[in-house]
Amino acid sequence: MTKLSPPLTRLRDDLLAGQRRALSRAITLVESSRADHRENARLLVESLPACKDGLRIGLSGTPGVGKSTFTEAFGGEIIARGHRLAVLAVDPSSTLTGGSILGDKTRMDTLVRNPAAFIRPSPSGGSLGGVARRTRESIALCEAAGYDRVIVETVGVGQSEIAVSRMTDVFLLLLAPAGGDELQGVKRGIMEIADLIVVNKADGDLAATAKRTRADYAAALRLMRRRDGDTEGFPMAVTASSIEGTGIAEVGDLIERLSATRLASGYHDRQREGQAVSWMETALEAQLQQVFEQAVSADTMTEMRGLVKTGNLSPEAAAERLIERYRVAMRGD
Amino acid sequence: MTKLSPPLTRLRDDLLAGQRRALSRAITLVESSRADHRENARLLVESLPACKDGLRIGLSGTPGVGKSTFTEAFGGEIIARGHRLAVLAVDPSSTLTGGSILGDKTRMDTLVRNPAAFIRPSPSGGSLGGVARRTRESIALCEAAGYDRVIVETVGVGQSEIAVSRMTDVFLLLLAPAGGDELQGVKRGIMEIADLIVVNKADGDLAATAKRTRADYAAALRLMRRRDGDTEGFPMAVTASSIEGTGIAEVGDLIERLSATRLASGYHDRQREGQAVSWMETALEAQLQQVFEQAVSADTMTEMRGLVKTGNLSPEAAAERLIERYRVAMRGD
Repeated sequence: MTKLSPPLTRLRDDLLAGQRRALSRAITLVESSRADHRENARLLVESLPACKDGLRIGLSGTPGVGKSTFTEAFGGEIIARGHRLAVLAVDPSSTLTGGSILGDKTRMDTLVRNPAAFIRPSPSGGSLGGVARRTRESIALCEAAGYDRVIVETVGVGQSEIAVSRMTDVFLLLLAPAGGDELQGVKRGIMEIADLIVVNKADGDLAATAKRTRADYAAALRLMRRRDGDTEGFPMAVTASSIEGTGIAEVGDLIERLSATRLASGYHDRQREGQAVSWMETALEAQLQQVFEQAVSADTMTEMRGLVKTGNLSPEAAAERLIERYRVAMRGD
Repeated sequence: MTKLSPPLTRLRDDLLAGQRRALSRAITLVESSRADHRENARLLVESLPACKDGLRIGLSGTPGVGKSTFTEAFGGEIIARGHRLAVLAVDPSSTLTGGSILGDKTRMDTLVRNPAAFIRPSPSGGSLGGVARRTRESIALCEAAGYDRVIVETVGVGQSEIAVSRMTDVFLLLLAPAGGDELQGVKRGIMEIADLIVVNKADGDLAATAKRTRADYAAALRLMRRRDGDTEGFPMAVTASSIEGTGIAEVGDLIERLSATRLASGYHDRQREGQAVSWMETALEAQLQQVFEQAVSADTMTEMRGLVKTGNLSPEAAAERLIERYRVAMRGD
């Protein structure tokens, strides 16, 4: 292992001692795209001891579903159970003016001031792949700093949920009560990764609607085949009210039960190993893609796509031509 | 374009004249893995004029759902509407002893003897990618031979449905009536590609259960967001009885309506163009993968996976090491 520079060693030691400022600075380093920062971030992350007793919780929900108030309530519950909690966000759509939960911090009043909580707004800009890598490294930093529960939030922008589900142990989908014509529907693919569907805002006028919505999704979940490693009874749908606090302890119980079962069965470890290998393969594919793009011009790709679209060239013949050009370019590197 | 050899020219002419024997021989050529056969198959397929007025129908359902009897009834309906119908099968799990619908041909008595129908058992063995390519080329051959409706059947073995949905215009999912504990559930991901869910065996004792099953799936479909290009009202769930013939004409009407709407809106053409480009990209990825595997040994990959699994190497660092070895190997090709 490469030796860390003195400033990096200090950052690492402060991080392992649980200093919040060190954690903030380390995440900033991980989020930087400067080459020297990237290299330092890589060295730092690789120097950390593996933390195996943490639980990583994915949380998704469309805007307006009450994600921040739920995180405030659920986060309080997690801390009350004796854990230290970090909240990260994945939002590839966020602009340079700030991530989505930066503004939401005001809606997490109590959590923000809790010394057992660490809240970090989403890294701004960049591709989903880049954001995903930075978030994954940030999780490792939070765990090294002693946060044994990490919530990774994402707004429902499609692929980001899949990315988050590939770096977390359990996945919560937050829904608003809705019925009949209001029913927007869940993005296809999202229900398939959810371990727990929480119908939020189950209070006041919406209580009855929330109950019906929960029953609808519970029925829909029963129509889908269970995944390997699914715990009996999961995926599941429940109601909760972040404002009244009802259902929050139940969500906490369910998450702990799910996690304990998966730890005991070995599924937890297998899932983490599989995630690591799958991240290696994803990183490899992305880099192979880059190598290809350096060798074969975008114009050539556009030309081939055009020929294939109009039916003037078969998809296979186009692929063969591209590979031929690629081989030639790679030899002459 | 390369000139076809005299025997290939004859095969092509006989095929375009609609000769069944020529179609059978052409599909056998396409299914062969011998290099010279592959080359001839490629030349033959590329020499065919594009057939744009055909409709390609994907059909999936687990064993026991009555796929053959449904195909018999639905196929009869399609032919009664003045079409010529080809039935192909995708079954990567089928062994050398014969594809799944080879035996089922006996259950398609009427269709097998109908001069307007052409039924071809599934190509045996090989990877899903290989089977998919051969099926896609077989569709082109059937259309060139004048079959303007092609049903591509698949048994529910997961990825094969996705592959079939990527080579067809509309997708039917066949289900058996079931309730309560019998409910096995649909493979995750399959409901997302279905345009029409048909609950089969809606007759006799099962009629009431079929009705309830239909309602359950209709409700579940409403909870999912519609895709771009989805026609109003679709995806939809209906009941049918292949034995009594009820609901079969309705399925025919729905398919025609869906197809007409998509043709008029331009969605049909866009989908086909997108499919062609996506096949090119899939073929390119598969070939890039091959190039990579020739350059970097399987042992090296296994070693890196092991290091990543145990946490001794970060996924990104492993990917970087692999790319480095790859670049070196490619230069020295």
